[in-house]
Amino acid sequence: MTQAQQAVASALPGRSNQAVLIVYGADRPGIVAAVSTTLAQHGANIVALDQYTDDPDGGQFFQRTVFDLPDLVVNSPALEVDLEKVLGKDLGMTWKLTHRASPKRVIILASKSDHCLLDLLWRHRRGEIPMTVPMVISNHTDMAEDVRSFGIPFFHVPSVAGADKSASENKIIELVRGNADLVVLARYMQILSDGFLDGVGVPVINIHHSFLPAFIGAGPYKKAKERGVKLIGATAHYVTEELDEGPIIEQDVVRVNHADTAGDLQRKGAYVEREVLSRAVLAHCEDRVIRAGRQTIVF
Amino acid sequence: MTQAQQAVASALPGRSNQAVLIVYGADRPGIVAAVSTTLAQHGANIVALDQYTDDPDGGQFFQRTVFDLPDLVVNSPALEVDLEKVLGKDLGMTWKLTHRASPKRVIILASKSDHCLLDLLWRHRRGEIPMTVPMVISNHTDMAEDVRSFGIPFFHVPSVAGADKSASENKIIELVRGNADLVVLARYMQILSDGFLDGVGVPVINIHHSFLPAFIGAGPYKKAKERGVKLIGATAHYVTEELDEGPIIEQDVVRVNHADTAGDLQRKGAYVEREVLSRAVLAHCEDRVIRAGRQTIVF
Amino acid sequence: MTQAQQAVASALPGRSNQAVLIVYGADRPGIVAAVSTTLAQHGANIVALDQYTDDPDGGQFFQRTVFDLPDLVVNSPALEVDLEKVLGKDLGMTWKLTHRASPKRVIILASKSDHCLLDLLWRHRRGEIPMTVPMVISNHTDMAEDVRSFGIPFFHVPSVAGADKSASENKIIELVRGNADLVVLARYMQILSDGFLDGVGVPVINIHHSFLPAFIGAGPYKKAKERGVKLIGATAHYVTEELDEGPIIEQDVVRVNHADTAGDLQRKGAYVEREVLSRAVLAHCEDRVIRAGRQTIVF
Amino acid sequence: MTQAQQAVASALPGRSNQAVLIVYGADRPGIVAAVSTTLAQHGANIVALDQYTDDPDGGQFFQRTVFDLPDLVVNSPALEVDLEKVLGKDLGMTWKLTHRASPKRVIILASKSDHCLLDLLWRHRRGEIPMTVPMVISNHTDMAEDVRSFGIPFFHVPSVAGADKSASENKIIELVRGNADLVVLARYMQILSDGFLDGVGVPVINIHHSFLPAFIGAGPYKKAKERGVKLIGATAHYVTEELDEGPIIEQDVVRVNHADTAGDLQRKGAYVEREVLSRAVLAHCEDRVIRAGRQTIVF
Repeated sequence: MTQAQQAVASALPGRSNQAVLIVYGADRPGIVAAVSTTLAQHGANIVALDQYTDDPDGGQFFQRTVFDLPDLVVNSPALEVDLEKVLGKDLGMTWKLTHRASPKRVIILASKSDHCLLDLLWRHRRGEIPMTVPMVISNHTDMAEDVRSFGIPFFHVPSVAGADKSASENKIIELVRGNADLVVLARYMQILSDGFLDGVGVPVINIHHSFLPAFIGAGPYKKAKERGVKLIGATAHYVTEELDEGPIIEQDVVRVNHADTAGDLQRKGAYVEREVLSRAVLAHCEDRVIRAGRQTIVF
Repeated sequence: MTQAQQAVASALPGRSNQAVLIVYGADRPGIVAAVSTTLAQHGANIVALDQYTDDPDGGQFFQRTVFDLPDLVVNSPALEVDLEKVLGKDLGMTWKLTHRASPKRVIILASKSDHCLLDLLWRHRRGEIPMTVPMVISNHTDMAEDVRSFGIPFFHVPSVAGADKSASENKIIELVRGNADLVVLARYMQILSDGFLDGVGVPVINIHHSFLPAFIGAGPYKKAKERGVKLIGATAHYVTEELDEGPIIEQDVVRVNHADTAGDLQRKGAYVEREVLSRAVLAHCEDRVIRAGRQTIVF
Repeated sequence: MTQAQQAVASALPGRSNQAVLIVYGADRPGIVAAVSTTLAQHGANIVALDQYTDDPDGGQFFQRTVFDLPDLVVNSPALEVDLEKVLGKDLGMTWKLTHRASPKRVIILASKSDHCLLDLLWRHRRGEIPMTVPMVISNHTDMAEDVRSFGIPFFHVPSVAGADKSASENKIIELVRGNADLVVLARYMQILSDGFLDGVGVPVINIHHSFLPAFIGAGPYKKAKERGVKLIGATAHYVTEELDEGPIIEQDVVRVNHADTAGDLQRKGAYVEREVLSRAVLAHCEDRVIRAGRQTIVF
Repeated sequence: MTQAQQAVASALPGRSNQAVLIVYGADRPGIVAAVSTTLAQHGANIVALDQYTDDPDGGQFFQRTVFDLPDLVVNSPALEVDLEKVLGKDLGMTWKLTHRASPKRVIILASKSDHCLLDLLWRHRRGEIPMTVPMVISNHTDMAEDVRSFGIPFFHVPSVAGADKSASENKIIELVRGNADLVVLARYMQILSDGFLDGVGVPVINIHHSFLPAFIGAGPYKKAKERGVKLIGATAHYVTEELDEGPIIEQDVVRVNHADTAGDLQRKGAYVEREVLSRAVLAHCEDRVIRAGRQTIVF
């Protein structure tokens, strides 16, 4: 195992021989049997299984299986050959196998706000999220010292108004591409172009400071105050080309009242934002999230 | 006291000499002093007081005071004369005094759904809401038997498509006008015209089956399923001329997940709807809600 | 199908060929494979599967599988023969198969409180809980009219102080035995003897009006007020011989504050009690609860 | 203003002329009038007022008033003279006036756990809690670097088993006495003797990692796992001589299930602990908490 893998493995004992198998596709009889039989034949023991079909009369099938396979690193390739044959060829399913001790490489983009970024870094330091953080990129320098105190590289990529906007974005893509399995926008406030997703080539999770689909776009706390809502919220979602429209991974709310100013909403909302983003990143890193059209299956 | 007053008084002991004073208007120094001094002079003892100013540098002032005045019914008129002089004339405030033992007359409009209506009638029967229910009006007959089992009159006013729509609405206005202090739309699904509010002449509370401002209009559960939200909600609000835009009184949410169909969302949502509507009606009947522009102060 | 089965089947469409298979016992490799392969061989299609092992290094295995089997009633016996062979004999597991369209017979015991009882009867009437209610038994007559308005038989079995206590209990056992799959104590306030469980011979679910293990025994709301807690709760649990010590199925809380009297706690708590009990009864009737020692697995 | 006062004043604008008046004692008519009239006479304008009487027929009276007084620092003494005459002498009430721009000096005791301590320091750094942190004291050195990175002094006072225990405690008392308005035990795991409260001479807030009164004492997460509860919680309370028995300030819970190990409960519980402790410390520092026997009034 690499050093990172060892860190995760020691914080979350018993994971070194565990793997997660994700399977999805058009439902048909026999998928669960195929998966479990193949695993059993390779000497794997299933420790957790969640399965869901969205339409019992022929819809989409989703399954997440966690299993123990002795000498996982050595024996996994042979298992994967059989899984491709059974799941891929015979059943036409999409599948993916990850080793629990292999953390995901998560690059975080931040602006000035510290609450979401720090909560992620701090949970990571406690070994609670199976991820490494290769770097933090920010268009401000405010967080440089905090980030580096975690032993994580910090890069300042300022945003420039006007035509040079793409230059900053290209710089970010250059830093990220090939170095990340996931990009997290932790209250990163710059609008990214349509080309960003293709540029980085990995999923991007954003935290929007409202309970979507309410208050899309800028200034949601101010809008929430004006509308006089009694709850405010935050939403973590996969980024798509349409602003704030991507598949929702997690949401939560907190109660507010007439005495809360827009500033109070912002302060209270910050704690929901960091909690929601951290849960979403954890779920993604634990392979508990499957994208299904405009929605997500979260096991 | 009337029979209804006695019922409320016995369910909520100690209220027969209690009153609620609501005061609001442009903030200025001395309002709290004026209210409390006047009450003290009349021998009233304050048992609860909530006060809020929305801008310390000159905004709107709101206060709700609950007090005990021995022989309230006899002594209240003299107190009200002084309150009008001090609050109305001298300080330019709007004020309203209600006796806690005087329940509000609440007429409920329902369609086919029973959950919101029944929860209100149960809570009323348990003496938990200081209201009487002069009648229930519905465009369907499904709820007739249930309503009458509570000893409450039920009127069937069918909705007719097309030009005769106003005839049904006029019939409702005719039944309501002068007989209610509040109208509650308990999942009453007919769109009411702009003239309805003027017609009934009292506040109207509606329960919308989404977490406003998300999913305005029809089919919010279906829209929620499509958007893939992880929480659904309900909102109780005062009705204004714009659909689903009125001041929000109360909201709440419940967690849902990928396994919930639109039908499941509807079933789970029903329990949030009834809880939210009942809380809102209770708050209104206890004079804990003050409308302030597009928002509400809820003490 | 019987009439009751038809009622459930029409309220929850698509269930007539669905069944639930519960499997649990000492974990060992191959159980999931055995279950899914056997099901596949009989032409069943799995629509939902939840599996959990409490200790990856050899603990207890629990699985709940929902599947579709064409002509379920006709084909189920043959499937069950194979399941006994594979699960019972070969793997030493305990298993149970129920048909989703077969509602559970739930007899409810109540005292004077109406909130829990009515919520169950009303959810049942809406077809939301796969159960029939053969009768309601109460030591008071207050609820007789309400219960009979649902078309359900009501029996008054008064409690008698002293030595005759067992006579009432024996009367209840006589009414219940053989007529129920579950007994629900819906704020039934009489203490039942140790012999009651054996007497009725089916599981018994009770709702305790506190957040266990806080405030065991009588007067929990008064104790909660004295302790000055900021949340009160309710707990639904399987009854065992020790008062309030049985395995917890569901719990929830609601926020309270200094202004709430013990009476207010009781009123607010009632809504948590009915919600928690209804969720627990629903989970049990949907075969989502497996007892595991002092705890429950709730899928 | 001092430097600390300036920091708080700039983070929470508009506070430099604001003060909080707390009044409590045996209820009698005229208290609200006396307070508001006196304030008005001194040119103060009330911006928020919460009042509560626990028994309308003669109980305890509690009031919190926030007001604006131009040139507060200059004019406050004269106001306080009148308040003592009116409230102290004439009405026999206990009263306390604090200036909002004067932060409370809060000394934090910690052991190895970082989550509660760091959340307090972060919120403090963001200017969200009106407090200064003169020092952090810990029986371990783990948190030294983090604490000092906030610019806060860190003192290591190791715990010694046996007779020398009082030596460590005396050292802490020596550091605290005269330097704090509040002591916070942020998952400080050493049992403090009965003499500690007298020694430090200020209130002490502790966070207990369970939902009191459930699971008093050590190992609450392990006990929670054994009992099979479906919610775990945390409680912030004032420390008294009886372990975990002091007046509760704030509590909250989070949902857990059968799949959570005792370690998972500990991880999930940590986020409730930090949230609850931070809310309680904020409420105390904003003078929103009044101790009333075994309970607290929290405005």
